[in-house]
Amino acid sequence: MASTAATAANAAARLIDGKAVSASVRARLQTEIAALKAAHPSFAPRLAIVQVGARPDSSLYVRMKIKAGAEIGINVTLDTLPAEVTQLELLRHIHALNDNPEVHGIIVQLPLPKHLDESVITEAVSVAKDVDGFHTLNMGSLAKRAAHPLFTACTPKGIMALLKAYDVQLAGKQAIVVGRSDIVGLPVFHLLQKANATVTLAHSRTKDLKMLVREAEIVIAAVGVPELIKGEWIRQGAVVIDVGTNAVPDATKKSGQRWVGDVEYAVAKMRASAITPVPGGVGPMTVCMLLENTFEAAKRALDAALAGPTIH
Amino acid sequence: MASTAATAANAAARLIDGKAVSASVRARLQTEIAALKAAHPSFAPRLAIVQVGARPDSSLYVRMKIKAGAEIGINVTLDTLPAEVTQLELLRHIHALNDNPEVHGIIVQLPLPKHLDESVITEAVSVAKDVDGFHTLNMGSLAKRAAHPLFTACTPKGIMALLKAYDVQLAGKQAIVVGRSDIVGLPVFHLLQKANATVTLAHSRTKDLKMLVREAEIVIAAVGVPELIKGEWIRQGAVVIDVGTNAVPDATKKSGQRWVGDVEYAVAKMRASAITPVPGGVGPMTVCMLLENTFEAAKRALDAALAGPTIH
Ligand SMILES: NC(=O)C1=CN([C@@H]2O[C@H](COP(=O)(O)OP(=O)(O)OC[C@H]3O[C@@H](n4cnc5c(N)ncnc54)[C@H](OP(=O)(O)O)[C@@H]3O)[C@@H](O)[C@H]2O)C=CC1
Ligand SMILES: NC(=O)C1=CN([C@@H]2O[C@H](COP(=O)(O)OP(=O)(O)OC[C@H]3O[C@@H](n4cnc5c(N)ncnc54)[C@H](OP(=O)(O)O)[C@@H]3O)[C@@H](O)[C@H]2O)C=CC1
Repeated sequence: MASTAATAANAAARLIDGKAVSASVRARLQTEIAALKAAHPSFAPRLAIVQVGARPDSSLYVRMKIKAGAEIGINVTLDTLPAEVTQLELLRHIHALNDNPEVHGIIVQLPLPKHLDESVITEAVSVAKDVDGFHTLNMGSLAKRAAHPLFTACTPKGIMALLKAYDVQLAGKQAIVVGRSDIVGLPVFHLLQKANATVTLAHSRTKDLKMLVREAEIVIAAVGVPELIKGEWIRQGAVVIDVGTNAVPDATKKSGQRWVGDVEYAVAKMRASAITPVPGGVGPMTVCMLLENTFEAAKRALDAALAGPTIH
Repeated sequence: MASTAATAANAAARLIDGKAVSASVRARLQTEIAALKAAHPSFAPRLAIVQVGARPDSSLYVRMKIKAGAEIGINVTLDTLPAEVTQLELLRHIHALNDNPEVHGIIVQLPLPKHLDESVITEAVSVAKDVDGFHTLNMGSLAKRAAHPLFTACTPKGIMALLKAYDVQLAGKQAIVVGRSDIVGLPVFHLLQKANATVTLAHSRTKDLKMLVREAEIVIAAVGVPELIKGEWIRQGAVVIDVGTNAVPDATKKSGQRWVGDVEYAVAKMRASAITPVPGGVGPMTVCMLLENTFEAAKRALDAALAGPTIH
């Protein structure tokens, strides 16, 4: 009997399938967009991407966004500026997009060449079109208890959508977020905290990560160090979300490499109650949430247009 | 020998004396302000307080700020608006102060009457004059890793000044902040985190507060529940900052009440290495930091004036 219990306790975790969740979100978006287009022929959600230079990885991400948008009825347009564009020229370009009523969402593909100040550029995007959720006003509203951002950063929003899809209860739970970047760790911290989890934010200066992870009922890893978090640290029954997407050499693969997360998956999955694989977990959610944010921006613009001119 | 060691370990904590630290900060500010006034006769730092209605507690706080300002050379002026002022009238008043170059800092005394929207009013204060640090842009910059706020909220800033004055090392330390209000808990979380502590943010939905406090090397209590945190929970040698300021009935006092913190002080002080008393700990720092923020705003305005007109 004892051995049956042990087997049950050690059964592999439920797989949190980001491909499936993202497919269902995209299907829902496609239906909603089609319905709104039918009701309002002028409804034409549009995301403008600004790419500076031609980094191959950036170009790949941009192509993925264009394709994913096209599939569900969001027009994703690309403005490519030369790598040597000046900050002023780039700012003028963003201002023009801010002023263009046909554009609902704007993202600047990062990273930018070194001579451009990313924070100045990010702040130049209109808060109302900031579908990446990187603007300080959107970040501040995310942090503040008494406020709601217009847009939440896409990867963190995708993590919350995964937790919701798998019905993971958050209120009162002990959570740890490992990593505190402005685009992943920090916003995830705020989202979990607002959902009433008790959250610890860990980072490279954290002393006893192992002990902290051991106590957590929810573990979010957003570090960028392959298998930093050992499977044996995972508390029995914890939910594990692995954001890490790290290429490691693998001679058995055609490409010579494979992707691993920040969590030691093979061992962790025997202890967790649910876990995201890498790839196929958080990854597919990010572009999907970008499209959702763009759709929301377009809906807000439609609602404002339908409400007619306002008197100030 | 064992008993000597035990005695040493149980020696009462060092008292973190907020009155003394605040007196020394105010003395420094007074000297710096006098020096700048001597060098630049037009230098006249001014804080404008807007009070709506006449709540006796608010009036008391306002008088304290005016007096503290006068002592060090900051002109604190009070605009009192009737309790029934409309939101639009109040906004116009704030805009006039925003536009007035002789005003360097603006605070709206909270709480406001129920018919006024505190968040709309708070956001109306110019970010560059927001010496309370409540504006979403200042909160967002506090949260963001890659940004610095123009102003940090006064009580959290005061807590950091106390930790600095007592040379408390933060990097790599395990900290807990109990309470997550926009004016205390949340900004303290961000400040500790940016100082490289590993911080847990606890609140009313936290399940096992006792266990979390037991592990913390730094405990910040900002709850508003008298002696919620038991002395026995405090880890040996921890540093305890008690923000709580709670009135409890006390027949032995003339006023019929006395002030207690959120931490069970009498027991906690036998375990902590350093602890703030209530009153006389965090309390005196808040007004002091408001004056420091106002001084910084006035200095920035002076620097801008000295730099001359800029070309856009
Ligand atoms: N859609 C997706 O799937 C996405 C995946 N990612 C992936 O997520 C990972 C994190 O990305 P990002 O947030 O941008 O990374 P950053 O490099 O910006 O941040 C990494 C964070 O991890 C912390 N860290 C580094 N080493 C350690 C350590 N040994 N122990 C604990 N913490 C540590 C750093 O701490 P400190 O702050 O102290 O330096 C930092 O806060 C990467 O693998 C990235 O590829 C990212 C975005 C989207
Ligand atoms: N200068 C000074 O000395 C100042 C002192 N103070 C004092 O600090 C204290 C906190 O003030 P403030 O931040 O404005 O208060 P708020 O009431 O705005 O916030 C209280 C916080 O405590 C949390 N909380 C309530 N009950 C519990 C509990 N049982 N266990 C754990 N957490 C709990 C709440 O959680 P939840 O979010 O889940 O509701 C909330 O986040 C008060 O005593 C106040 O007087 C405040 C400002 C300045």
